[in-house]
Amino acid sequence: MNPADRGAIREAAAPGPGGSVLADCSERDLIARIQRRLPPPPDWMTVGIGDDAAVVEPERNRLDVLSVDALVEGVHFDRAFTPPHAIGHRALAVNLSDLAAMGATPRLCLLSFVLPGGWPVADFEAMLDGLLALAARHRMHVAGGNLARSPGPLVIDITVSGTIKRRQIATRSGAFPGDELFVTGSIGAAAAGLEMLREENASGSPCAVRYLYPEPRLRLGQLVARNRAASACVDLSDGLADAVHRLAEASGVGAIVDDDELPIEPSARDWFEQRGANASLRAVTGGDDYELLLAVRPRGRRRLAQVTRHAGTRLTRIGVCTADRAVVLRSGPQNQRRDEPLPGGYGHFR
Amino acid sequence: MNPADRGAIREAAAPGPGGSVLADCSERDLIARIQRRLPPPPDWMTVGIGDDAAVVEPERNRLDVLSVDALVEGVHFDRAFTPPHAIGHRALAVNLSDLAAMGATPRLCLLSFVLPGGWPVADFEAMLDGLLALAARHRMHVAGGNLARSPGPLVIDITVSGTIKRRQIATRSGAFPGDELFVTGSIGAAAAGLEMLREENASGSPCAVRYLYPEPRLRLGQLVARNRAASACVDLSDGLADAVHRLAEASGVGAIVDDDELPIEPSARDWFEQRGANASLRAVTGGDDYELLLAVRPRGRRRLAQVTRHAGTRLTRIGVCTADRAVVLRSGPQNQRRDEPLPGGYGHFR
Repeated sequence: MNPADRGAIREAAAPGPGGSVLADCSERDLIARIQRRLPPPPDWMTVGIGDDAAVVEPERNRLDVLSVDALVEGVHFDRAFTPPHAIGHRALAVNLSDLAAMGATPRLCLLSFVLPGGWPVADFEAMLDGLLALAARHRMHVAGGNLARSPGPLVIDITVSGTIKRRQIATRSGAFPGDELFVTGSIGAAAAGLEMLREENASGSPCAVRYLYPEPRLRLGQLVARNRAASACVDLSDGLADAVHRLAEASGVGAIVDDDELPIEPSARDWFEQRGANASLRAVTGGDDYELLLAVRPRGRRRLAQVTRHAGTRLTRIGVCTADRAVVLRSGPQNQRRDEPLPGGYGHFR
Repeated sequence: MNPADRGAIREAAAPGPGGSVLADCSERDLIARIQRRLPPPPDWMTVGIGDDAAVVEPERNRLDVLSVDALVEGVHFDRAFTPPHAIGHRALAVNLSDLAAMGATPRLCLLSFVLPGGWPVADFEAMLDGLLALAARHRMHVAGGNLARSPGPLVIDITVSGTIKRRQIATRSGAFPGDELFVTGSIGAAAAGLEMLREENASGSPCAVRYLYPEPRLRLGQLVARNRAASACVDLSDGLADAVHRLAEASGVGAIVDDDELPIEPSARDWFEQRGANASLRAVTGGDDYELLLAVRPRGRRRLAQVTRHAGTRLTRIGVCTADRAVVLRSGPQNQRRDEPLPGGYGHFR
């Protein structure tokens, strides 16, 4: 985002007559606004939000699954077309997606907000609404948090904790040559949605909704873990191509991804093709899909089919793991198939 | 920090000949730089850094203690006089101080870094050194993390997890009227040190060192918890006055703090008085001391004395909790004592 854009956003975000901004509030008032929205703490939360630290009882016979992820204004979202409610939803969803990839059941989160003093209180409340609605849907409790003023961008950093039985853990590193690769749902929608928002502010289009309100695949991840249907699993936060690279590298395998099999969201394909872009390349390199990539042993296919029936989530076979360490995209007409290196994902610092 | 200052810092932070900045690195390279520095993971860490989430075994018969805290450039530190090594140390220390206040034993942390692309890699490494040296000293393991690019300030957000036995938890809310108030170590040093750094860049002075390298009172907090020597405990992150207000409010009591008894660091007192300031007021409102404030039942004094002997930490009685809800600072010559409201602490958004 260039500085001129950001200036425009600041103005757009200025409060209307009578509206107040965070700088008008004490930290204590803002914490009270969060506390008011929380449901009563569960029995296992011995000390909740408001003390120096939270104290929680671990769940019996289960392991803790922990992850942290930050959304940074100007890097991961743009306030010009990301409503506060969606910022809150996305900030938690990207974390829940990590729990989904491990097969974990969400339990609690800690919220760390770094917020500009000029942010309207109404936007802060809308952000909380989006975040806490998703938390409630997955029976996840807020155990604690931190508020700090930002002299620059808005940063929402969330730590999540879930639980899992030891034998159900799904990591990135368990795939073998010969395992088939499956992806949940469809890809490319969020990347197209982000372009639609940027170019046309088309916040109502299905692709834009997929970008603004990703649905982490928690139920499928948990069913896959319980049924031990996958040898490896990773989420698609930085795009399918990046996920395939990470899974292959962690597992010490290569991969062939079949261009013809990619479950590209049709309206995203149309959007990319109307702009003369290679829809497959855009869909595999586009981030923010928050689907899951699974590696499945050939003998595990039946178990996977059972999982798919129960989860109500589409799973598409997109390729296979290989002993050769190359990671390639196979495309072209049937008698002229050719392999090209699968491009890398999104590199935050490049 | 005003924008002109920040520009100057950017220039000062530009790498020398042959030096590289974070923008020259891939995210994967930066993660590898963190991983290289970590000791082997302990047995209880089933999945460590590098997967979608960490998986850890809870400690038997203990509860988890969780806290999150962020250090934001331009709000909590200034790169002009805070060396990267100290930034890393402080970012973890402020979190460990929260664990100390609960009486917990540190176990693991998750690191979330939001970093400007122009930050020199050498500074990133020095920041890690400071952070990981403190983690190692307290046998704390890094379970995971997240890296994001910042279009503005540097943000270091850390989530810590420790453990404690249920009957040992020390919260803010257990104080009764008649309980005596004690504070560890001395106060005012960090606030004076920050001024010395700002005005004279006196990074070698003892007060500046106290600001740059706070030592969380973990051992004392754990001993107090084990001996159940305190009825309530809170850390001094935002100053003694703020801590007294928080403890009093959470416990539903008032407090009288005795000005004559405040353990103000002598060199800090000299610094404030040379500038014509009221040293007591500056010391009680100054933040960043990371000492502990304890409320102790009159019959608990002997147990507290035992703890003090073992911890090797000075404890000073500074006042008493009262049934009257007012929180006051009592000062003046013996026959003309007068009470004034104890000022509030540091309000992040005011």
